[in-house]
Amino acid sequence: MNGPDSTDASGDEFTLIADLFAPLASHPAARGLKDDAALWPAAGPMVMTCDAVVEGVHFLSNDPIATVAQKALRVNLSDLAAKAAQPAGVLLSLIWPNHRPAAEIAEFAAGLQADLQAFGVALIGGDMTTTPGPLTISITAFGELVGARCPARDGAQPGDLLWVSGAIGDGHLGLALLQKGAKILAEPDRAFLINRYRLPQPRLDLAPLLAQVATASMDVSDGLIADARKIAAASRVRLRLDPQAVPLSQAAQRAVQAGSITLRALLTGGDDYEVLFTAPAHQRQAIEAEASRLGVPLSVIGETEAGQGVSVLTVEGVDWGATGGGYVHRLGAP
Amino acid sequence: MNGPDSTDASGDEFTLIADLFAPLASHPAARGLKDDAALWPAAGPMVMTCDAVVEGVHFLSNDPIATVAQKALRVNLSDLAAKAAQPAGVLLSLIWPNHRPAAEIAEFAAGLQADLQAFGVALIGGDMTTTPGPLTISITAFGELVGARCPARDGAQPGDLLWVSGAIGDGHLGLALLQKGAKILAEPDRAFLINRYRLPQPRLDLAPLLAQVATASMDVSDGLIADARKIAAASRVRLRLDPQAVPLSQAAQRAVQAGSITLRALLTGGDDYEVLFTAPAHQRQAIEAEASRLGVPLSVIGETEAGQGVSVLTVEGVDWGATGGGYVHRLGAP
Repeated sequence: MNGPDSTDASGDEFTLIADLFAPLASHPAARGLKDDAALWPAAGPMVMTCDAVVEGVHFLSNDPIATVAQKALRVNLSDLAAKAAQPAGVLLSLIWPNHRPAAEIAEFAAGLQADLQAFGVALIGGDMTTTPGPLTISITAFGELVGARCPARDGAQPGDLLWVSGAIGDGHLGLALLQKGAKILAEPDRAFLINRYRLPQPRLDLAPLLAQVATASMDVSDGLIADARKIAAASRVRLRLDPQAVPLSQAAQRAVQAGSITLRALLTGGDDYEVLFTAPAHQRQAIEAEASRLGVPLSVIGETEAGQGVSVLTVEGVDWGATGGGYVHRLGAP
Repeated sequence: MNGPDSTDASGDEFTLIADLFAPLASHPAARGLKDDAALWPAAGPMVMTCDAVVEGVHFLSNDPIATVAQKALRVNLSDLAAKAAQPAGVLLSLIWPNHRPAAEIAEFAAGLQADLQAFGVALIGGDMTTTPGPLTISITAFGELVGARCPARDGAQPGDLLWVSGAIGDGHLGLALLQKGAKILAEPDRAFLINRYRLPQPRLDLAPLLAQVATASMDVSDGLIADARKIAAASRVRLRLDPQAVPLSQAAQRAVQAGSITLRALLTGGDDYEVLFTAPAHQRQAIEAEASRLGVPLSVIGETEAGQGVSVLTVEGVDWGATGGGYVHRLGAP
C-alpha cells in the first residue's frame, strides 16, 4: 500500500490506510504499510494462493461488511489448509465502490483485524482503490508447509478412501435463505445456516493430518460433486461417492426432510469450504482417531477406483455424478 | 486457479484457465494452474507487492486489451524495481465484466505472456471470476533482492541528491491525448506519448544500482511532487526539487512549448512509473557512470535538506510543492 500523506484530507486512500489498516500490519515485513512493497523473511517453500470475491457474485450487497472481509480472508485460508499449510501473511486488494459509504471501511478493517488475530496471519501489504462497480476484494495469502508434503489434486490412488470434513450444503442453504427470504426453518436453524454461508471455517487444524495422510486434497468451494470431479480428473481415477454418507448438519437435515431442498442441491451447491481428500484405506482408524482428538468431524464419503469421473449413485440407482453440477463462472459476453 | 474440468463447455473459467493461462505457467511452482495453491521454492527474503487496476480508473475502456494486461503487470514490476528486487513470480486476479467479449481474454493472455517472457517472470497462480462491473485486474508480484539492501522510503538523509529515471509527464500527457482527443501534436509525438501511458517501462535494470546507492527509493505513480512528498514525510527531511531540472521527453517539451500543457501539470500528473530515489552526493559520478553504462537516463532533480515537505521553487519564485497535486483515490460515498 502507499503511505500516508500528511497533506491529504480524511477519507482518501492514504489516510484510510494509515488510520485503519496500518494498525493491522504490525509485522515488520509490512513496513507499516508505508512502503511500496513488503519484505517477507521467507525461510523455505511458500504455499501461495489468491482468491477474489465480488459483491453480487460471491457475497450479497447487504451482507454485513465485517463478515465480507472475513469471508474474503477465509476462502484463502481454506485453500492453504487443504494444501497442508499454516497461513502466515496476506496482501489485500480492496476495490471500494464510489457509492458505498466510506464509513463502512472501518467496519471492514475491524472484521479483518479480528480474523487476522484469530488465525495468526499478518497483513503485509496490498492496494486500495475506487471503482464505479461492485465491491471487489482480492486477497493473496501465503503460508508454510506444516509437514514434508503439500498434497495436490493429482495423487489419489485406486483403493483410497474419500473423506470430507465438517458438513456439506450449509453454505448453499444459507445463501438460498438470504436470496429467497423463505421462512422454511425455525430461526435457530436459519441463523446457523446463514452464519455458515457468511463465515466459512477454514480447517487449519487438519493441515498436519493432511500432510501425513492425504494423497489428494482440495477445499470444496464450487460444490462437492464438481470438486470431486476435479480430483478424479487430476488423479486419473474414478471416485465413487455415496450420497447417503455425505455429512449434513442437523439444520440441513431438517431442510431436506421438510422437502425445502434436495440432497442433490446440497451436494452441488458450493460455498462449503470444507476439505475433500483421499487417503489410503489402511489409514482409516488413524484418521478417525486424529479427527476425534482435534474435534473436527471427518467422514468417509466414498472411495477411489480405476477409471475416470465421479459416480454418485443414489439408492434409486440414479447417477448424480455423470452430469453437470457445481458453480462455474462463465466469463464475458459471447 | 482452479483446474480444468473436462465436462465444462468452452468459455467457462476452467476451460479458459486450461487453454489460455496454463500455457503461461510453465514454472513447476504453478502446478500447471491445476491446483488450489502454488508452491514457491523461496530461498530467502521475498519482496512482495500488490497493485490493482480498474477500467475507467487506471485505464480506458478502449485501451487495447493486450496492453491493459501488460500495464497491470508492469506497475507491479515497477514497484519491485524501485525496491532493488528482481521479479520472480506473479499471481493474477482477473475479474472479467460479463458484458465484455470473452474472445478478448485470449488477447489479454497473449499480451501477458509476451511480458512474462520479456521480464522473466513466472505466472504461478491466481483467480478468475466474473463481475457486473468494470474490468478489474489485481496482481501480486514478488521477487528477490538483487543486493544486500531493500531501499525503503524512509532513508533519505540531508545532503543526499534527489534522482529520477527516464522522463516525467509522458504518461499523463498520453492519457490527456486519449481522453480529450486533442490534435495538439504531430502523430509521432502522439503515438509516443500514448504508448508511454499504456506501456510503462519498469526500470528493472536499475535494481542493482539502487541496492548499492539509494538511501530512499520508490516508483513515481501518483505524480512526481506527490511522491516526492511521501519520501520527505517518511524520511522526515525536506526535498528541494528544481522543476527546470526535471527531465522531459522531446514530445513533452514540444507540448509545453506549444502551450498545450503546463510543466506543473506534468510534475503532478502521475502514471510515470519512473524511479525516484535519493543517494549521497559523493556518489554522483559513480551513478552517472552506471546510468551511462546501462543506457538508462538518470537525472539529478533536487536535493535533501533538514526540514519537512517538498519545495518546488519556480524561476518566478512560486512554490509548487506547498500545496496539493498528485493522484489520490477518494474512497466511497460520504
